[in-house]
Amino acid sequence: MEQAAGELVIIGGAEDKDGECEILQHFFSLAKGRDARLLVLSTASTDPDAGEQYRQIFSAMGAAEVRVLAVQSRQKANSPEYARIFAECTGIFFTGGDQLRITGILGGSLLGEALFKAHRDGVVIAGTSAGASVMSETMLVGGANDATPKKEIIRMAPGLGLLKGAVIDQHFAQRGRIGRLLAAVAHNPVILGIGLDEDTAIIYKPVGEYEVVGSGSVTLIDGREVACSNVSESTAEEPLVLTNVRLHILSRNYAFKITGRQIRIHPLKEDT
Amino acid sequence: MEQAAGELVIIGGAEDKDGECEILQHFFSLAKGRDARLLVLSTASTDPDAGEQYRQIFSAMGAAEVRVLAVQSRQKANSPEYARIFAECTGIFFTGGDQLRITGILGGSLLGEALFKAHRDGVVIAGTSAGASVMSETMLVGGANDATPKKEIIRMAPGLGLLKGAVIDQHFAQRGRIGRLLAAVAHNPVILGIGLDEDTAIIYKPVGEYEVVGSGSVTLIDGREVACSNVSESTAEEPLVLTNVRLHILSRNYAFKITGRQIRIHPLKEDT
Repeated sequence: MEQAAGELVIIGGAEDKDGECEILQHFFSLAKGRDARLLVLSTASTDPDAGEQYRQIFSAMGAAEVRVLAVQSRQKANSPEYARIFAECTGIFFTGGDQLRITGILGGSLLGEALFKAHRDGVVIAGTSAGASVMSETMLVGGANDATPKKEIIRMAPGLGLLKGAVIDQHFAQRGRIGRLLAAVAHNPVILGIGLDEDTAIIYKPVGEYEVVGSGSVTLIDGREVACSNVSESTAEEPLVLTNVRLHILSRNYAFKITGRQIRIHPLKEDT
Repeated sequence: MEQAAGELVIIGGAEDKDGECEILQHFFSLAKGRDARLLVLSTASTDPDAGEQYRQIFSAMGAAEVRVLAVQSRQKANSPEYARIFAECTGIFFTGGDQLRITGILGGSLLGEALFKAHRDGVVIAGTSAGASVMSETMLVGGANDATPKKEIIRMAPGLGLLKGAVIDQHFAQRGRIGRLLAAVAHNPVILGIGLDEDTAIIYKPVGEYEVVGSGSVTLIDGREVACSNVSESTAEEPLVLTNVRLHILSRNYAFKITGRQIRIHPLKEDT
């Protein structure tokens, strides 16, 4: 599988937009700072103005150009102009909304192809909330909050596939989503569950390292050592049984790397 | 440490009271069924009628006697009559409410002494919600729901100490309490975190086995292999870091036993 050259900034929603904007600043830097030519993709939202606040923030940071693409239909997504537009950008930002709008409108479109090409060529892609969930190969598209883990409390669907081997959940602590992330991992324990709190992100670097930024926690659910699971035989109403899950909670200035079957976790220098 | 002869039925709150009453039936059986002489302790609640619904349920099940003790003051709790009352009972049931009322009113009282003696002599004790939390040596008395794990999102206090080596949280999935249970375990990873969903209980048997009953999940948080923790140096506002936590989710008809540093989990026969 070809390894893309661009980073991913995967944000658990509700990132700081008024204060130091730690997470958005990280994205801005990775997108070349004052030389940034940014595309804000607000397809996830039905509100055509959803990208405007990000345009204002990145413009205020000093980006050379910020363009909002409020692509609301497959017809629009198949415009041939996107090949050029994405070839010239230095960063792509997915707003929140509904992840099924992102895949339903952009999946298989010319815009989608242009976006993947840009990322392979080194362009950073960020996404918040729905824009975070959509990063994985199989994504969570819905599920009960504050719920006992059961097989049918979640729905999954094919995502953009930018992040391999993981499934993302967002607004994680704030909406009580450990149950649904455990249910997702139970379906195939080879997949790492990554729960992102609000105002918290992981930055995935092509060298294979994930860094935590922001004010909350990142929860990792590693099911590869699961000893006992009833995922296939349990009914929709029966709670899942899942033993021997490994769980990690990390905060800013920690990083991890997946090496074989190990998750290696280490603190970063404070000044990185 | 002397091993009490009585069982514990530790319930995550909101147990079924209208249908098959699976959990309450288990308690009723352990308390000798039709020969049961039950004491319902509603001290946790400021409502003097809080025990009445349990009196009605256990009477309808056919208990020989059900008596509600709505002990609301330390003066009352120090009445010498409790030695006799507890010596004659076959089961004790703590209602929900505020766990600090249970310990604040009963802790160190003659009633408390009579209760511990009855349990040592083989009397089963059940508790739901606050009545569950209070079972452990150190108990959770408060904490934020749906919260990023941080050191100061929880408050702990000395509990009744009937259950050794564990800390209980209740209404677990329904109120999004994994964050506060992780925070509790972070404070001392030797303590097993036990999260009980609503209408879900563990039955602790003096042979050292815990059985799961009811309709939801029991979540076990085993921190003994934690590799990295910032619990001492983090500030009140900083998220906890805690790596290499082992997590298990179990449902009815599963049992576990703690043997040395191992938690041994096994399914029970369907007909047990």
